[in-house]
Amino acid sequence: MADLKTCPPLTRSSVQTAHKCIKQYIHETPVATCSTLNSLASTPQSERCPSSGPNVAAEPAPHSSATTERASAYTASPNVRLFFKCENQQRIGAFKARGAFHALGRLIEEEGIDNVRRKGVCTHSSGNHAQALALAAKTHNVPAHIVMPKISTPSKIAGTQSLGANVIFSGSTSEEREAVIQEVIQKTGATLVPPYDHPDIMLGAGTQALELEQQVVNLLVQQPGLGISGKKALDAVVAPIGGGGMLSGIATTLEGTGIKVFGAEPNFQGANDAERGLKQGERIEKVKTLTIADGLRTPVGKIPWSILSDKSKLEDIYSVDEDQIKAALKLLMERAKLFVEPSAAVPLAVVLYNEDFRKMVEREAGEAGWNIALVLSGGNTTVEAIAKLYQPPSATAERAEATVSMDGDKKAENVAG
Amino acid sequence: MADLKTCPPLTRSSVQTAHKCIKQYIHETPVATCSTLNSLASTPQSERCPSSGPNVAAEPAPHSSATTERASAYTASPNVRLFFKCENQQRIGAFKARGAFHALGRLIEEEGIDNVRRKGVCTHSSGNHAQALALAAKTHNVPAHIVMPKISTPSKIAGTQSLGANVIFSGSTSEEREAVIQEVIQKTGATLVPPYDHPDIMLGAGTQALELEQQVVNLLVQQPGLGISGKKALDAVVAPIGGGGMLSGIATTLEGTGIKVFGAEPNFQGANDAERGLKQGERIEKVKTLTIADGLRTPVGKIPWSILSDKSKLEDIYSVDEDQIKAALKLLMERAKLFVEPSAAVPLAVVLYNEDFRKMVEREAGEAGWNIALVLSGGNTTVEAIAKLYQPPSATAERAEATVSMDGDKKAENVAG
Repeated sequence: MADLKTCPPLTRSSVQTAHKCIKQYIHETPVATCSTLNSLASTPQSERCPSSGPNVAAEPAPHSSATTERASAYTASPNVRLFFKCENQQRIGAFKARGAFHALGRLIEEEGIDNVRRKGVCTHSSGNHAQALALAAKTHNVPAHIVMPKISTPSKIAGTQSLGANVIFSGSTSEEREAVIQEVIQKTGATLVPPYDHPDIMLGAGTQALELEQQVVNLLVQQPGLGISGKKALDAVVAPIGGGGMLSGIATTLEGTGIKVFGAEPNFQGANDAERGLKQGERIEKVKTLTIADGLRTPVGKIPWSILSDKSKLEDIYSVDEDQIKAALKLLMERAKLFVEPSAAVPLAVVLYNEDFRKMVEREAGEAGWNIALVLSGGNTTVEAIAKLYQPPSATAERAEATVSMDGDKKAENVAG
Repeated sequence: MADLKTCPPLTRSSVQTAHKCIKQYIHETPVATCSTLNSLASTPQSERCPSSGPNVAAEPAPHSSATTERASAYTASPNVRLFFKCENQQRIGAFKARGAFHALGRLIEEEGIDNVRRKGVCTHSSGNHAQALALAAKTHNVPAHIVMPKISTPSKIAGTQSLGANVIFSGSTSEEREAVIQEVIQKTGATLVPPYDHPDIMLGAGTQALELEQQVVNLLVQQPGLGISGKKALDAVVAPIGGGGMLSGIATTLEGTGIKVFGAEPNFQGANDAERGLKQGERIEKVKTLTIADGLRTPVGKIPWSILSDKSKLEDIYSVDEDQIKAALKLLMERAKLFVEPSAAVPLAVVLYNEDFRKMVEREAGEAGWNIALVLSGGNTTVEAIAKLYQPPSATAERAEATVSMDGDKKAENVAG
């Protein structure tokens, strides 16, 4: 990785420079909208059709017939229009391509292409970063050594190998991986490119926010009806947070634009380390979780934390449970027809099901409402993994059915786009 | 339905008129591309990675070591670039919205809005046509009566009802449905809007081909690299065929443009009635199949057949088996990140796995190759249905694994976009 001391400062203008550096290698991914999801997000949870996801409890009123009337706990009624940044359609199927191309580009700039080609690059990852670095390295004809746990999905190993990378296997604990990566570095002299905890990665990941800003402005010129009436741009962005490379990059990019930035995190087995860290005013360094949002299992990195804990850059972080992520994932596929991985559904889960977030939007946005962009961070899952998530009859489905019998006011929506 | 005698002729210019009529009510759906699928389609089947779908048999050469060398049956090597017309992102999630809006628009034009509102419209369908007609009727404030088999998926019933339609249940046989629909017509005076066997439906469905032509030209101006080098437009379109309303509409639209039109059909339990009909020179009137491509179970209709059996309008029809459809569906989701229903994957299955089609393209297109558009007809499936298709370990997976052991030359591709 390029030396920390010579890294560009974490500012919007550095992100603009990064964008120029990587533009020719990455896709400007599309921005999608879906009117069904807009109306769902703008409907209070207590008034929604049970099939639209895990609902908040709706108690029958004490003196009414439960089948015809209903008194619900108050649930917020924010007015929102959603814009989905489709990084699931980025090269290698995830936003990680941005950071990898930028990090390698900067390394080449600093050390010269001949040196980088002689030494090579390396990383440890079983996920999207492995393939992103392999692709960037292949593009620049640089050797890449990727340490992957032996138990990684065969398709991911094959995918990384097919991009020309040298895959080296390790055990699954971080100590075992660490030992193997040190061995690789000693043997080859390769430079380590970490997955998120580095300014070059953060600046690269932030470039999507530049595109997003402009794409939403363009969309609203062409079709003003897609957004909140009379508004010409974004009010907020919600992005997933795992290691924090992307969220901190986006927060850096949008500082001073007036566009508010929020993080979305799973909370299963304490995966919401960043949200908890913000509350206690200190970064949480270790997390052990098997959330289905497998891209978000890592604790937030040191350098990302320096941005995320700065209230002037990041508004807040909200978390959701596994059922809420599954429900949002199902909606993204079935209603918006977008194939994404579970981690990418976490922002929509926050917008649809986190009452704290919804009340905040209702309060801050008022009747006018907000145009909100959600980052669909990646699409690297398989139909077999989807099969595992939704079969056999899951807790979510049982719960939804249980709610039906309490709910005389059934509604359904099935209109795409 | 508007009287057959007063219907516009089945010509490109009628499709243009239809497009003007429905444009304000439908989406101009996007056209997507995927470089991974381009290279897969341009790789001979015998040289592909086993995980890329059901492969043709590759026998070891008699005098060679099977682990290092391989002599395969010759498989075609066409050069193609693919353009996906995303009708899965059409309103109600399928192209059917086009035909329904056009048919209702024409009815209103002929009989006057007051008469149509008084009498209402009706149809029988358990699928996309039900919701399409319900949406068109709701838009024009016309009552819609939809006869659905009692055993229809609850979400489809709810979807149709949520669009304001009056859903009436029937048994599952066509006689039972017929009886109920006649009763509805007698009672209400509603006009029947059939799902495909009518010129207004065909002309409406054909409108997507007008968009497609222009969208591909525009894409190739912006990014010439997306297409075959030096070509500025489409060479061919492959669309699914069930009742034939869409395929005949597209063939009508593209007649005289030089763009060749092909049909793609499942062949499970004789579902390839249109392909077989073309061979025997006569329409096959009955089909009984439970192909996973559930939108394509119907036999081709009379009026569509008059177009499809005309060699100057339709080039040919090719069919594929269930494993090939499943493999193509998996690729569309995992590689192109597009959420589609099984019927929509049939054209890609033909392009990837039908050797007759592939040899024809190799022969006709030569080294230069073809730009081919594939119609993704709809996206109305559920994650539960996907779970059912891909779990537990399917025949496809077992077969792929069996092939691995014979195949020393493993390759994999995992790069989206």
